[in-house]
Amino acid sequence: MVLAEDLAKQQRSISIAEFFEKNKHLLGFDSPTRGIITTIKEAVDNALDACEEAEVLPDIFVGIKKVDAEVYRITVEDNGPGIVPENVPLVFGKLLYGSRFHQIRQSRGQQGIGISAAVLYAQLTTGIPTRVVSRTGAKVSAHQFELMIKTETNEPEIVSYEEIDWDRTHGTRIDIQFKSTLAAKKRLVDYLRLTAIVNPHARITADIDGEVTVFERVSGEVPPCPKPILPHPHGIEFGALKRIAAASTGTIEEFLIGSFSRVGKKTADEMIALAKLKPSRKVSRLDADDLKRLLDAMQAVKVPAPPAQQCLSPIGEDLICRGLEKEIQLDFVKARTRP
Amino acid sequence: MVLAEDLAKQQRSISIAEFFEKNKHLLGFDSPTRGIITTIKEAVDNALDACEEAEVLPDIFVGIKKVDAEVYRITVEDNGPGIVPENVPLVFGKLLYGSRFHQIRQSRGQQGIGISAAVLYAQLTTGIPTRVVSRTGAKVSAHQFELMIKTETNEPEIVSYEEIDWDRTHGTRIDIQFKSTLAAKKRLVDYLRLTAIVNPHARITADIDGEVTVFERVSGEVPPCPKPILPHPHGIEFGALKRIAAASTGTIEEFLIGSFSRVGKKTADEMIALAKLKPSRKVSRLDADDLKRLLDAMQAVKVPAPPAQQCLSPIGEDLICRGLEKEIQLDFVKARTRP
Repeated sequence: MVLAEDLAKQQRSISIAEFFEKNKHLLGFDSPTRGIITTIKEAVDNALDACEEAEVLPDIFVGIKKVDAEVYRITVEDNGPGIVPENVPLVFGKLLYGSRFHQIRQSRGQQGIGISAAVLYAQLTTGIPTRVVSRTGAKVSAHQFELMIKTETNEPEIVSYEEIDWDRTHGTRIDIQFKSTLAAKKRLVDYLRLTAIVNPHARITADIDGEVTVFERVSGEVPPCPKPILPHPHGIEFGALKRIAAASTGTIEEFLIGSFSRVGKKTADEMIALAKLKPSRKVSRLDADDLKRLLDAMQAVKVPAPPAQQCLSPIGEDLICRGLEKEIQLDFVKARTRP
Repeated sequence: MVLAEDLAKQQRSISIAEFFEKNKHLLGFDSPTRGIITTIKEAVDNALDACEEAEVLPDIFVGIKKVDAEVYRITVEDNGPGIVPENVPLVFGKLLYGSRFHQIRQSRGQQGIGISAAVLYAQLTTGIPTRVVSRTGAKVSAHQFELMIKTETNEPEIVSYEEIDWDRTHGTRIDIQFKSTLAAKKRLVDYLRLTAIVNPHARITADIDGEVTVFERVSGEVPPCPKPILPHPHGIEFGALKRIAAASTGTIEEFLIGSFSRVGKKTADEMIALAKLKPSRKVSRLDADDLKRLLDAMQAVKVPAPPAQQCLSPIGEDLICRGLEKEIQLDFVKARTRP
C-alpha cells in the first residue's frame, strides 16, 4: 500500500495562470477561432468602459492582420484616459487584477481576467510578448511595454519598456499575436456591428486583414457613467454578510443603514427586531447564529428594489432606433424601455 | 475628464477565492440542485483516486441528510490511505492545491479545485465550517479539522483541530453543509449507479435522507494504478515547451529524449536536423526563434502514439458487462474494447 506520506509529496499549489493555461475553455479560449473573438470582445469592452469613465466619446480602432501561416496580430486602440505606467504591467500581465470586480454597477467586464487571458494565450501559442502603449495626457509621454505573464507565479514579466512619441494625447493600444484563424470573420463583424448599435456614441473602425469598415457614431453625447451602489439586503449571501459585518466598526443599526441599498432607520429597526437583536450591539461582535437570524430577517422584511437608475445607464429608445436603422436594413424599427 | 490617476486607485488584485465566489458557475455551483451533485462527484472522485493510488478496494459511504429547512449535510467517507495532517487544511481549505494537476495520466480530478470549491460554497451559503477526519494508519490516531477558506487570501483557516478515536484504520471523511435541495435526487442516484458500473471494484453505500442503497462490487481485484507519462512531442504548445526547455540542463538531444514520450535518439536527431540546430547545444540557451523551429520540427516528424496502456487503466470487457448486468435490467449485454 502506498502511504499517505508518499502521496503528500505530490501535493502542491497550482498558480492561477497555470490553472487557466490548462482550462482555457473557462475563459473563452477553447479554439483558435473563438480566441480571436474573445480577445477583441475583452479589449473593446475595456476600451468602451475606459472612455465611459473618462466621459470621452469613444474612438476605437480594431485591427486584425495575418502575420504568419497561423498567427494573427490583434490591435485595439482607444482614446480613453490611459493607464498610469505603474499599473500597465499588472492590468495586462496578471490574471485577476482589475478595477471593476468589487463594484456593484453595470460595466462590460467584471472579472479582471479578460485581457490578461489573451496575453497568456499569446505567450502559450506563439511565445510573443504583448505590446502595450498607453498615455495619460498631453503633458506626459507615452509608455510602451512588452509584457508576458510568469505562469508559475501569475506576476507580470516586463520584457521591454521605453517612453515613446505617440500622436494620441491619451489612450491605450494593445498589440497581441497568437495562433488563430479568421474562419469566424462574419461572426466577428457581426459582433462589432451589434456593439456599435448598443454603443451609439462610439465610432469603431475595423481593419480586418486589409478590409476596412467604419461603424460611425449616431450620437455625440456621452452617456452618463453608472455609479456603484451598495448591495441590496435581499441579494446577499451568508458568507458575504459575515465578511462585511466583521470589517464594520458600527452598531447593527448603523451597519444596516450604511452598508445596504434602500435601508433606512425604520427598515433597519424592523429587521433587528425580527432577528431578536439589540440595535446598539456592535455588528462585528455578532456570532454565526446571530448573523444567520439577521440574514433571515433582512430577507423577510420588505425592501424597495435597488436604485437601478443609478447603477445602470440605459441607452434610450431614440438612440437604439437610430443605431439599428443605420446598421441594419429594416422597414420598421421601434424600441421600448422596460418599465 | 476623470484622470488615469483616479482610475488607478480602483485597480487591485482579486483573490482566486473571491473570483470563484462570484463565478460559482465555472465550478459547477450555479444552483443549489447542481451544487449537491458537484460536491458528491468531487468527493467520490477523490475517494476513488485515493484508493486506487493505495491499491485498496474502495469502500465508500455517501450520506445526504437534511439538517435544516434548506440545509443539507453531505458526508463522504473512504478507506483510502488518508491525508497527512499537515496537508489536510491545504487540500480542503485552499483552491488550486492538489496532486494531480501536473501529471499526464488518467485520473478522475485534474484541477485541484473541486472539493475546496464545495467548502467555499458551504461557508458562503451557511457559514458552517467543513469537518474533515483523516487517518493514515493503525499506528497513528485520526485527526479532525474544522476548516474554512480565507476568501481574501485563499489560505485555509483552521477553526478547530483535535486528535480523535476513529474505528477506521485509514481513510478520510468529509462533512459539509450547504444550502441545497434534493430536487435532483434521481439524477444523483443515477450518477452513483453509473459510477458503480465503471468502478466494478468499488462498493458504494448511499444513505440519501434515510434511504439506503448499496452498490455492491462485482470484482475483488484492484485495477492497476495508471502511471504518469511524459508529454508527447505532437501535443505540446509553445509556452509549455519554452518553460520546460528553460528549466532543463542538458543538450537539445538529451532534452528531447528525456522529456518526451516516444522520442529515441533517431527521432531526436531527425527533429534537430529539421530545425537546423546543433544536437550538442544546451537547450536552455535556445532563443524564441530556435524554439519555434524546434517545435515545428517536433510536430513534423512522425512519432508513434503515446504509451496509452501505461497512463490509462481500462476496466475491461468482462467487468463492464458484469457491472451493467448487476445494475441495469437488460436482455443482452456486450462490451467491446476500442483497438
